[in-house]
Amino acid sequence: MNDFLDSIKPSVRAISAYHLNGKHYEIKLNQNENPYDLPQWLKDELLDEFRAFAWNRYPSFGNLRLIEKLSSHVQIEAGRLLVGNGSNELLQTLIAASLSAGKKLLLVTPTFLIYQQLGRVAQADIREIEFEEDWSFPVNKILTTLEQEQIELCIFCSPNSPTGATLKESDLIQILKRAKGLVLVDEAYHEFSKTSCLELQSNFKNLIITRTFSKAMGLAGLRIGYLIAHPDLITEINKAKLPYNLNIFSEFVAAKLLDHYDLVNENIQKILSEKERLTRQLLEFNNVSVIPSGANFFMIKTPTRAPELFDKLADKGVLVRDISKYHPRLKNHLRISIGTPGENETLINSLKNDTFLISTKNYT
Amino acid sequence: MNDFLDSIKPSVRAISAYHLNGKHYEIKLNQNENPYDLPQWLKDELLDEFRAFAWNRYPSFGNLRLIEKLSSHVQIEAGRLLVGNGSNELLQTLIAASLSAGKKLLLVTPTFLIYQQLGRVAQADIREIEFEEDWSFPVNKILTTLEQEQIELCIFCSPNSPTGATLKESDLIQILKRAKGLVLVDEAYHEFSKTSCLELQSNFKNLIITRTFSKAMGLAGLRIGYLIAHPDLITEINKAKLPYNLNIFSEFVAAKLLDHYDLVNENIQKILSEKERLTRQLLEFNNVSVIPSGANFFMIKTPTRAPELFDKLADKGVLVRDISKYHPRLKNHLRISIGTPGENETLINSLKNDTFLISTKNYT
Repeated sequence: MNDFLDSIKPSVRAISAYHLNGKHYEIKLNQNENPYDLPQWLKDELLDEFRAFAWNRYPSFGNLRLIEKLSSHVQIEAGRLLVGNGSNELLQTLIAASLSAGKKLLLVTPTFLIYQQLGRVAQADIREIEFEEDWSFPVNKILTTLEQEQIELCIFCSPNSPTGATLKESDLIQILKRAKGLVLVDEAYHEFSKTSCLELQSNFKNLIITRTFSKAMGLAGLRIGYLIAHPDLITEINKAKLPYNLNIFSEFVAAKLLDHYDLVNENIQKILSEKERLTRQLLEFNNVSVIPSGANFFMIKTPTRAPELFDKLADKGVLVRDISKYHPRLKNHLRISIGTPGENETLINSLKNDTFLISTKNYT
Repeated sequence: MNDFLDSIKPSVRAISAYHLNGKHYEIKLNQNENPYDLPQWLKDELLDEFRAFAWNRYPSFGNLRLIEKLSSHVQIEAGRLLVGNGSNELLQTLIAASLSAGKKLLLVTPTFLIYQQLGRVAQADIREIEFEEDWSFPVNKILTTLEQEQIELCIFCSPNSPTGATLKESDLIQILKRAKGLVLVDEAYHEFSKTSCLELQSNFKNLIITRTFSKAMGLAGLRIGYLIAHPDLITEINKAKLPYNLNIFSEFVAAKLLDHYDLVNENIQKILSEKERLTRQLLEFNNVSVIPSGANFFMIKTPTRAPELFDKLADKGVLVRDISKYHPRLKNHLRISIGTPGENETLINSLKNDTFLISTKNYT
């Protein structure tokens, strides 16, 4: 290695470079996106209004336009909100503000890979606890760890990606009572599970919530997220946050979409009913099981080696997420986002051509 | 203080919360923005094309569309480029990848405040060297410090904000020869000084450059920046970078603007000629001096206390930057961005009403 790389932290150099195949697929069920774009009339309205904005001027300080809209939408004080370039950026900022070398970060794994990445960049001591055999949150092990160790930050994704489990409120309350540090609940998929721990913030000042416009809200391309926390924590996280971190276009579109939340609700309903239908259809295969999920995706398990099935689907233009190398327990798993009825139909038809999946009684 | 804040780093808590007055001013000369927005025909063309994009889909991995355009525009290999949510984000990522508690960050001050902020978030040991009396870079002091201490990262803003000085190539070469760590040159204003250290990268693998679309390129509202470094460094910085950090709209507009670079060049010429004119007009006042600057802004010095002059201008709807509290040596200074001819005219006329500035021989 060249010595000019010595200034990069060893924990960063140890990360495997991440590459995503940029190939185009007809049907994209790999990133838990909302399959429904905004209707053309709304795009036209937004673009027309955006013509008059001054693109050469910095965003307003603090993105107050969106903060005010969110405050009324979520029904919390504006002082509890931060907006950012996707919830990832707010998580990055929180981690930069709280974790330094050797501080302990608790994760329940397998989970969203960015938590690991950011923890390693911060040189945190990452404590991983595995999900229970049935993929539920391992509450007792979490409580024991919180008792025995000084955990600076816990991150729970609920519903969790890629496994789908939702953290029960009663369990979270126990965790919050025990935690000596901060507890972040990533509610990226909460609109699909219709759960939220927001109300617990009135009792637990150390509870932080992140949410995104990339999933149910259908704006993944525009990178918008928000964070909800006690105002004193917002003040501190804000000191580590870059100013002008959300561009004027994304802020404008996000604020306007909150005026048309009926569209979002319609999409959520469509996705949830497709999820039920797709689950039923998948269970008709003999060699597929579906792991229950609170989100707009689920894992399937199949004794056909997952990467092979992934390739077969990809050959037919259907891109799902190959998670078989994420964790030893996932070696037979794929993650599938719920698409439109037509997309889901194509998925099912592609599987119907797989002789192994339709053979009988092979699956335990 | 509540104990739930104990998980925030002391170095973050010690930062003073930053607030910017959100009041609207008729004339905005406080953020070194390009005063010229894109022409309406180009905005219309871009917005029309953007209607057809899928807003619900994540950006392409690695933002290859913009990377390719930049590669050809800057004339360097694509593997030397990263794009981000403003150059600030790339700086944040670089600092997260390289600086941990106690590592040394060298800054020449007064300079862009974000470097300090990010250094403190990383708990770096920040070594500040002051600019020379004539505001040139203190090259000998920098060389001595590099000799005596293990500096992990140097950041030079060239031309520097708010002071305006440009780092000479011969000086930078000396610094690069001496540096044991990384050297970042922030070329946010390089189009105005017509300087760049890009060619030095072939000899110095530890040289990193950041640039922005927020100044000469006139897209401050869309938050776009890029970083240029040796491919091996790009690989490492990329590991600390969030995926999908640049939204699809900003990426699209930035890539398209590179096809219309004649527009950018015209604006640069207009701004530079206005800068000359404004300088001449300011020097006609007896009690104002103008600090030479390579950028689209300059500092003025006046024995009228700067905050008072700032208030007087603000009362007339002209917002400049009050930098008088940034550094003891700036207590009589204001920073003024070059506006349109009309805006600059209003600035001059507002100053003409100041009886102190037009009185004679008071200024030393």
